[in-house]
Amino acid sequence: MIERVRRLVESGPFQWTIIGVIIVNAVILGLEVSPGWMERYESETNVVGWVTVGIFVVEISLRIFAYGLRFFRGGWNLFDFFVVAIAVIPGAGSYSVLRVLRVLRVLRLLSTVRSMRRVVAAMVATVPGMASIAALLAMLIYIGAVVATQLFRSTDEEHFGSLAASLRSMFQITTGDDWANVIAPTAAEHPWSYVFFVVYIVLATYIVLNLFIAVAVEALEKEADEDREELRHEVDEVEQAVDESTAAILAALADLKAQVTALEARLPK
Amino acid sequence: MIERVRRLVESGPFQWTIIGVIIVNAVILGLEVSPGWMERYESETNVVGWVTVGIFVVEISLRIFAYGLRFFRGGWNLFDFFVVAIAVIPGAGSYSVLRVLRVLRVLRLLSTVRSMRRVVAAMVATVPGMASIAALLAMLIYIGAVVATQLFRSTDEEHFGSLAASLRSMFQITTGDDWANVIAPTAAEHPWSYVFFVVYIVLATYIVLNLFIAVAVEALEKEADEDREELRHEVDEVEQAVDESTAAILAALADLKAQVTALEARLPK
Amino acid sequence: MIERVRRLVESGPFQWTIIGVIIVNAVILGLEVSPGWMERYESETNVVGWVTVGIFVVEISLRIFAYGLRFFRGGWNLFDFFVVAIAVIPGAGSYSVLRVLRVLRVLRLLSTVRSMRRVVAAMVATVPGMASIAALLAMLIYIGAVVATQLFRSTDEEHFGSLAASLRSMFQITTGDDWANVIAPTAAEHPWSYVFFVVYIVLATYIVLNLFIAVAVEALEKEADEDREELRHEVDEVEQAVDESTAAILAALADLKAQVTALEARLPK
Amino acid sequence: MIERVRRLVESGPFQWTIIGVIIVNAVILGLEVSPGWMERYESETNVVGWVTVGIFVVEISLRIFAYGLRFFRGGWNLFDFFVVAIAVIPGAGSYSVLRVLRVLRVLRLLSTVRSMRRVVAAMVATVPGMASIAALLAMLIYIGAVVATQLFRSTDEEHFGSLAASLRSMFQITTGDDWANVIAPTAAEHPWSYVFFVVYIVLATYIVLNLFIAVAVEALEKEADEDREELRHEVDEVEQAVDESTAAILAALADLKAQVTALEARLPK
Repeated sequence: MIERVRRLVESGPFQWTIIGVIIVNAVILGLEVSPGWMERYESETNVVGWVTVGIFVVEISLRIFAYGLRFFRGGWNLFDFFVVAIAVIPGAGSYSVLRVLRVLRVLRLLSTVRSMRRVVAAMVATVPGMASIAALLAMLIYIGAVVATQLFRSTDEEHFGSLAASLRSMFQITTGDDWANVIAPTAAEHPWSYVFFVVYIVLATYIVLNLFIAVAVEALEKEADEDREELRHEVDEVEQAVDESTAAILAALADLKAQVTALEARLPK
Repeated sequence: MIERVRRLVESGPFQWTIIGVIIVNAVILGLEVSPGWMERYESETNVVGWVTVGIFVVEISLRIFAYGLRFFRGGWNLFDFFVVAIAVIPGAGSYSVLRVLRVLRVLRLLSTVRSMRRVVAAMVATVPGMASIAALLAMLIYIGAVVATQLFRSTDEEHFGSLAASLRSMFQITTGDDWANVIAPTAAEHPWSYVFFVVYIVLATYIVLNLFIAVAVEALEKEADEDREELRHEVDEVEQAVDESTAAILAALADLKAQVTALEARLPK
Repeated sequence: MIERVRRLVESGPFQWTIIGVIIVNAVILGLEVSPGWMERYESETNVVGWVTVGIFVVEISLRIFAYGLRFFRGGWNLFDFFVVAIAVIPGAGSYSVLRVLRVLRVLRLLSTVRSMRRVVAAMVATVPGMASIAALLAMLIYIGAVVATQLFRSTDEEHFGSLAASLRSMFQITTGDDWANVIAPTAAEHPWSYVFFVVYIVLATYIVLNLFIAVAVEALEKEADEDREELRHEVDEVEQAVDESTAAILAALADLKAQVTALEARLPK
Repeated sequence: MIERVRRLVESGPFQWTIIGVIIVNAVILGLEVSPGWMERYESETNVVGWVTVGIFVVEISLRIFAYGLRFFRGGWNLFDFFVVAIAVIPGAGSYSVLRVLRVLRVLRLLSTVRSMRRVVAAMVATVPGMASIAALLAMLIYIGAVVATQLFRSTDEEHFGSLAASLRSMFQITTGDDWANVIAPTAAEHPWSYVFFVVYIVLATYIVLNLFIAVAVEALEKEADEDREELRHEVDEVEQAVDESTAAILAALADLKAQVTALEARLPK
């Protein structure tokens, strides 16, 4: 019985059905925030919504039945369980935080579609390689914000009036959005402040660039590693061919030498 | 006859003439939407326009004559046929949709200039490799829009008042254009919303970055594949040289051994 | 004499002096457009300006003397000659076009500093590799502008009222600057136009991305080519080692065989 | 004694403590520019601030004691010394420049956390490789600013009225921020100026792109260099195997030849 359920939940049609239900559920989430639609079709939408949740509950139950406690060891399984559990907590609809969390059901696409799971895993894998550079960028933004607050607090209260405002402004300058307007009031009063901001922009751009390159190099390195492995294998093969060839020749020589020695023994002394 | 037509349509001068006609036709399309020009030279422009279409009809006819039904098997051929067919449907000028489609004639440059055909083919080839990441980005935008509508619908009706408005705003934030102004009304009322948008921007930037890198890695991998192929070939050559060398040496040894054996036979027992 | 002049113009101190004069000249060009400075120091600035031009004339004369007609075969030499010639044409100061061209003297840094000459040469070398993709981008902008003019001419006269206005708007959208505001009036009247612009942005971004990657791949390929060349050399060396080894062994075997044959001849039949 | 102090300052717990103190100090710097916080907790904040500085003084003293004069040879050590020295100069708090410099204490994270030190070293190492391209970009901005001032000084006083204003505007256009608005007044009066700015944008984008690629190629090249080194090593091994094999075979042949020669000597003449 367990075996048959397991084969069912691992079958292609079952998984494609679940993917379809996830997409239907995602559309429902979008319709629920469209007032025009909800006025006319609220009850129908809610029914379809509850049916999709019901299918999720059945699906998770079947998977727990099929795998037993092992189900709870997989990270993606726990995610699926958590997301569906939120949906069936009684009275969950009345807390807006839990309503917002319902949108995470869309993320079940990540756990269910295999190619997306692989892409997400690959992305997450590049995070450690760029942690140091991201920390560097955070430091630059923080230092920039503290200095900007110290210097321009009274000049431009809106953008640099408090540490929070400066952090917001420095982050905006880092993304390059409308930076000229952000610094305009300050630059008008203290022309030398322009130098501070240009240096900040150049440094921030340079660190962001290095962040990008770190990710790209990590991705390319994996390719290069495989190439290197293959190279080593090919060259090892040549080395082995040389060794085997040497062994064959030396064996033939030893054989010849034995023959000559035998010949020698037969010669009159 | 067919052979001569085929040689004609494949000849350089014929193709360069067609490229010239495509460019003339593209200029005509631009002039047709310039009121000042059309007031003065409408009839001349129309005449040149119809002449270019006439040349296209002759060209396609010649190619169909030269290749017969095989013509309709090539994707680019079908594109050329379709684009020219639109131009000669009677009354096509009166439907604005068909008028707009006429601009596709400019795309005949893609089908006719070989280097551009290759570039387009290379670009299209990278699409599957980034489909998963593009889907991830679409999911992020959708989830962001649903959440933003749920939370900020009443705060900023213009940007987050409906799912459609939120989708537009989130796409705009994703492109980095003027995001600070898009979120300004919301951030003014709910300061914590700034965290939501910064997380969204960081995630979106990271996914877009991975999209870019996926395309770059795919392009570099093709190069690397050719290198690897060449490496394998070179190393195979060395391995073959070792094998041939071994065979030659072993043959010489066998020959020597035969000689020694013959010698042995002649010795007195 | 010619030999000594040649050695002079190729000497380090001579070239560093010229680089200094170019920088002084560049500063002069900047001061000339600063009204406050020119009011006070106009005559001094002009004197220094003419001295730098005088030094350039002497420098070019020396180089022509040193290299004779060969001077006019180098592209950078012709550039230097042209730039200095503009400066000494009598009455050149009165034509604003020629005044503007004087700024090209700053570009003499490119022709004089060797590392910059190399960088510029490397950049120019990547241009052919991206010509097809640049043409594709130009086509997309042109097609987008024609379609936008056809469809939105009367909706938003400022941005899409004529082909020229549409070309400007589409180029601006391609650079991603303030695109949301450019399309706002159109999107307000025709909500479906948003789809047209989003598709345009995605296509344009994708082509620009491919443009970037083409340049990057070209740069990396050059590296890879050198690696491949080195690889081929190393593997050739191994192959040669195998060949030499085989030859040595076969020679030793032939020698041995000759000895055995000689032995054989001395045996009684 | 010195040995034990050295072991202490190099121990993990000691370094993690210092990192913690640096972070506390960074938070203090942020709180000091938050008026609301300082009104209530000024004395407490100051106490914690001075305690952290005290810990820094003790730390640096211990390190000087442990390493003696060698301490002053390390660049990062000098940086730490300088940053802490600023904090204890009497009356430093009254000069705003020195107050601003206090923010550099946050940078002690770079000198103390090893992975960040490595990242910064790697970034600084790529600077020389892009110096020529950065100089090229600076030249383009300067030339663009001089020409724009010459041509548009009277058209748009705000953006191109002086060399300084033009430099600011050209830098802003180079970053792509709001360029359409910067050139709008000029383009409205001189439509041909649009061509100047588009050419400028294309050139600037192309140089910035090459700047990015130079950094990326440098990063990838380091990887490739290691690969190449490994390749050379592997191929050298094969070459050595061929040499050893040849030597073994030739030795066996020489041995055989000696035997045949001995045989020959024993044959009757």
